Amino acid sequence: MYFASDNSGPVLPEVMAALTRANEGYAMPYGADADMEEVRTRLREVFEAPEAAVYLVATGTAANALALATLAQPYQTVFCSAVAHIHEDECNAPEFYTGGAKLTLVPTDNKMTPEALAASIAGEGTRGVHGPKRGPVSITNVTERGGVYSAAEIAALCAVAQQHDLPVHLDGARFANALASTNATPAQMTWQAGVDVLSFGGTKNGCMGVEAVILFDPARAEEFEFRRKRGGHLFSKHRYLSAQMAAYLREDLWLQAARKANDAAADLAHGLRDAGAGFLHDPDANMLFPTFSRAAHQRLHEAGAKYYLWEGDLDGADPDEHLSARLVCDWSATDDNINRFLAHLAGAQS
Amino acid sequence: MYFASDNSGPVLPEVMAALTRANEGYAMPYGADADMEEVRTRLREVFEAPEAAVYLVATGTAANALALATLAQPYQTVFCSAVAHIHEDECNAPEFYTGGAKLTLVPTDNKMTPEALAASIAGEGTRGVHGPKRGPVSITNVTERGGVYSAAEIAALCAVAQQHDLPVHLDGARFANALASTNATPAQMTWQAGVDVLSFGGTKNGCMGVEAVILFDPARAEEFEFRRKRGGHLFSKHRYLSAQMAAYLREDLWLQAARKANDAAADLAHGLRDAGAGFLHDPDANMLFPTFSRAAHQRLHEAGAKYYLWEGDLDGADPDEHLSARLVCDWSATDDNINRFLAHLAGAQS
Amino acid sequence: MYFASDNSGPVLPEVMAALTRANEGYAMPYGADADMEEVRTRLREVFEAPEAAVYLVATGTAANALALATLAQPYQTVFCSAVAHIHEDECNAPEFYTGGAKLTLVPTDNKMTPEALAASIAGEGTRGVHGPKRGPVSITNVTERGGVYSAAEIAALCAVAQQHDLPVHLDGARFANALASTNATPAQMTWQAGVDVLSFGGTKNGCMGVEAVILFDPARAEEFEFRRKRGGHLFSKHRYLSAQMAAYLREDLWLQAARKANDAAADLAHGLRDAGAGFLHDPDANMLFPTFSRAAHQRLHEAGAKYYLWEGDLDGADPDEHLSARLVCDWSATDDNINRFLAHLAGAQS
Amino acid sequence: MYFASDNSGPVLPEVMAALTRANEGYAMPYGADADMEEVRTRLREVFEAPEAAVYLVATGTAANALALATLAQPYQTVFCSAVAHIHEDECNAPEFYTGGAKLTLVPTDNKMTPEALAASIAGEGTRGVHGPKRGPVSITNVTERGGVYSAAEIAALCAVAQQHDLPVHLDGARFANALASTNATPAQMTWQAGVDVLSFGGTKNGCMGVEAVILFDPARAEEFEFRRKRGGHLFSKHRYLSAQMAAYLREDLWLQAARKANDAAADLAHGLRDAGAGFLHDPDANMLFPTFSRAAHQRLHEAGAKYYLWEGDLDGADPDEHLSARLVCDWSATDDNINRFLAHLAGAQS
Repeated sequence: MYFASDNSGPVLPEVMAALTRANEGYAMPYGADADMEEVRTRLREVFEAPEAAVYLVATGTAANALALATLAQPYQTVFCSAVAHIHEDECNAPEFYTGGAKLTLVPTDNKMTPEALAASIAGEGTRGVHGPKRGPVSITNVTERGGVYSAAEIAALCAVAQQHDLPVHLDGARFANALASTNATPAQMTWQAGVDVLSFGGTKNGCMGVEAVILFDPARAEEFEFRRKRGGHLFSKHRYLSAQMAAYLREDLWLQAARKANDAAADLAHGLRDAGAGFLHDPDANMLFPTFSRAAHQRLHEAGAKYYLWEGDLDGADPDEHLSARLVCDWSATDDNINRFLAHLAGAQS
Repeated sequence: MYFASDNSGPVLPEVMAALTRANEGYAMPYGADADMEEVRTRLREVFEAPEAAVYLVATGTAANALALATLAQPYQTVFCSAVAHIHEDECNAPEFYTGGAKLTLVPTDNKMTPEALAASIAGEGTRGVHGPKRGPVSITNVTERGGVYSAAEIAALCAVAQQHDLPVHLDGARFANALASTNATPAQMTWQAGVDVLSFGGTKNGCMGVEAVILFDPARAEEFEFRRKRGGHLFSKHRYLSAQMAAYLREDLWLQAARKANDAAADLAHGLRDAGAGFLHDPDANMLFPTFSRAAHQRLHEAGAKYYLWEGDLDGADPDEHLSARLVCDWSATDDNINRFLAHLAGAQS
Repeated sequence: MYFASDNSGPVLPEVMAALTRANEGYAMPYGADADMEEVRTRLREVFEAPEAAVYLVATGTAANALALATLAQPYQTVFCSAVAHIHEDECNAPEFYTGGAKLTLVPTDNKMTPEALAASIAGEGTRGVHGPKRGPVSITNVTERGGVYSAAEIAALCAVAQQHDLPVHLDGARFANALASTNATPAQMTWQAGVDVLSFGGTKNGCMGVEAVILFDPARAEEFEFRRKRGGHLFSKHRYLSAQMAAYLREDLWLQAARKANDAAADLAHGLRDAGAGFLHDPDANMLFPTFSRAAHQRLHEAGAKYYLWEGDLDGADPDEHLSARLVCDWSATDDNINRFLAHLAGAQS
Repeated sequence: MYFASDNSGPVLPEVMAALTRANEGYAMPYGADADMEEVRTRLREVFEAPEAAVYLVATGTAANALALATLAQPYQTVFCSAVAHIHEDECNAPEFYTGGAKLTLVPTDNKMTPEALAASIAGEGTRGVHGPKRGPVSITNVTERGGVYSAAEIAALCAVAQQHDLPVHLDGARFANALASTNATPAQMTWQAGVDVLSFGGTKNGCMGVEAVILFDPARAEEFEFRRKRGGHLFSKHRYLSAQMAAYLREDLWLQAARKANDAAADLAHGLRDAGAGFLHDPDANMLFPTFSRAAHQRLHEAGAKYYLWEGDLDGADPDEHLSARLVCDWSATDDNINRFLAHLAGAQS
């Protein structure tokens, strides 16, 4: 009953097998390996973007911070959601990699609205050189609260950015889950909507540690390469990044894995609703924020369920008080675990 | 006949097996996995340093830059060899991670002497706030030219640093090869000699991509952790870094692998000498800088040998002109490859 | 009728005279001039802080950013008001000088409350290394909205910081106005309340361009000196900074100038109230945020009054709609100008 | 007998008078003052560059570091002389402002040769992303050793830069002295030779503290403005910078002051030669590096002469040993002081 995070499950067997296969003989270092050729070709096909520049790094924070550094000047501000990973969970990496740019937080507890983004942009850039210059917009899909933007919603946010001539970054640590949730094509969700640079996640969806950064306009590709090396994110034994990503892309493994995660979360959400749980945020993909009684939480805790309590104190007095939790499913979630979780929950609720 | 770099060979089978074993079930992310406990314990034993703080990252540049950022202030200068990896091969990563510290290059084409280091230190720090403040000394062992410092030589350099109250970083991307070459103990080569922080390499010696940073004084451990995260170098699926390093440390695999590499290089050097080759630098470990005739280079090139020409032009006119090369052996070098290489060389020389 | 800013009036005659006097013969550069000795001694007396380290720079942004860089690590966050100058008016200078620290904005439109500060601090620092580490608290007195903290209010904020072991910076660009408004002693308003570093403003209160940075604990003085030089803020002809500050401190000129500014603003506020104006923020010192009718604004505008319209559009349709303005008085404000302003206002209101 | 530096003499009377005149009534802040209009117009005329962007800062380090930050990316290296002010005397300010770029030191003890510059550029940029990308070339005229490049020599260096498509910065802290020494026009010495950005010094040549940065191509002017503000180098009471520079430019005061300094230095050099002194570097402008006996140094020291001993120890044993000194003249040097200096020198030599 492990629902703590999609970064804690095992690696997809196809990815492990690819790593083992890659471990033969000698390979050119630093991205000149053969698998990287396949990755580049395949991602350009998947995104219908034959000119796109494609690079691999090993962590989502590296992907995001390097992407933003390529788009932002140090005297600018980046517009992002108040709950964005780049603000809340990267320990100032965007500030570090951009050389000191600011983040302007668009008010929201899940998905940004175009109106809120427009208001934030309007609020900056009115003080001449006294405030920062307006810089890129960064959108997260799936959001950190489990919300999924449709391609049309992404396009609406990009349209606001374009009115001010601002580039757009999409943090797609869970991009596959967003696609699986909406049935948009990769192109519709990104460059056709107006996205300039994508962090295309692999790690949370069954890889060992690999993310692609896709620059749909290759003009700043060389800059990205220097910045990646300067950040210590260019792998000498790059073939082991390439092998993961190549396997992940073959036969739509990436989408299948995301669908399994989303389906598991949907089953879990269904059971939670049946058991009377509420939700802080509507569940759109593989992350749930249910609220249910402290007694149920205590029961699950004792049964060994692993997840983060989101708000509230497990040791409080009132057994009927509702506390919220974060539950995340990855590709490896099983019916058995879900059913056991729901059984403990129900027992507690009864 | 692949002698281009020790970053291009396959991963040790024990390390691959450990990765496969690690891929079972769920594991706590971000370094809270069980293998990391073993790594920490084992490295403290190996280094006879029960208080040392131990962290893992995936690249040597990350290890070095983070180590230096923890030791240096942005208004300081770092003293290092003119041929140091941190100066020549990290694309300003030390400058980036330290927030703009300078590197002062101690003149040498291989190993620094204490006298040269002392002169460089004396040359800085005499201009009050107009020049940078003196900061850490960074030493590389094995050097980028294949030289190995003995533990006594490391101690002599550290003594110079200590006279000025400067901390010492050791870039040990090839630390195992240095130990295998000298038979010093890990403790003798590091903290007993005066080293404060060590980059302990795994990647070049048979791992997939893992380096340990060992802070012998744990006072700045928390700072290191924040800096690692801020640099995007904290892995969510950290267990796959831990598994590599744990396997690498078990039963002295790390030293065995280095000995294999050093022994292969010694065999190759012996054959080169027999064939009349000279050496730009005395070969101490697993890197050779031989000089031999253009004709021999051409013969090897045609036979498919892979290595970097160090100085000179393969296509020049005079077949007897001597050109230098860099040849590197890793754990996977075979007698067969060495003998074939020497045969082609000899054929050409005859 | 110039009420646009206290950075637009002339320099105090005593300060100009001191500059002329300083311009004789040779003087040691970089702060080794004789006037700097006087400045250091006098500020230590004024603040009853015989150990304090004292430095001069020429702009308020430099003073604040250098002070924060000395107190904050790049992986930390600085707590400040949502309307702080360091956030709104310094174009990312704090982010730049700290090497990429974040600013956490304590919600307020004028003065922070201890409760709001405590809540902001509690909200950070709960995510381990994923969020920034908690860093210094920065308070502005007089605030950018004209509010003045009493010494007791400063102490209450510092007490919150001390609970978390966080250092405190006070942005005193208008420190003299705050003192003149409260009759606290300099010591009561700063180190006795718990302030660690003060930006002591001169420029807005009649100097040409000089601010002192006072580190009540001199432990980080050397670091400040290196950072000042590295930022290009160490003046070679430092005597002209010293001369300004020395004159400013003699015979309490600094307090007299601030009292004149505050008194002028009080007179103006009195007249505004009499004319029926409201205030966005209670006027405490030399800045007013009155609201009155568009017609009155138009009348003043035509008469040549200079000030910033704060909210609203001068060219809107409804003459009775109330628009807010920012009016600032400095030492050079005259009764005549105030009376003329009020006469135009009254004419319009009638 | 003050020859320690051209940053230690008094401000030109015309500049002081202009400051007093500027101190009347109100003036728009941040560079919107009327004198700045005159400065901009006049510098464009002087440099025959009607499109040039012109900005003022208060220190030479700020001018240089901001200029370089506008020209260089953080993953690049700046080519400069091994004795450049930006390397030796700015405490890592270029590294700070560029966000961590490296400085590659072109070997020389005075003026760079085109050959040496070309060799340094050839030596970088051959390691792909492993070394820094080649960035701007920075030239200093007058050099820190008193050498003056002719316009033709500047052009020859710029030609090397242009072969690699690298922009050129000219550190002209003593630009007026260089012009006075060569009789080149400002345009010939800068953009006609290939210079992109000039630090145009005022402080060392009789101003209180003002330097102009001239971007001959205004394309990056907006970036410069944001970077200036972000560095804390935008003055609110900017009129006092403008007034200095306006006075400095009127009726060629700047050139007259430089001629006085150069002439004084020539007189001093003549006398030194007559007294048998040698020179470490040929004196071209207002800085001299003579070598003469310890006894003479001691005599001068006792007589109160102020200057820096360059190499050697005043308290050594041998009175006949020659020690070198640095002597600098500014506009305020007097015949009387020079004659007294020479008299003490001669007395000692006799």
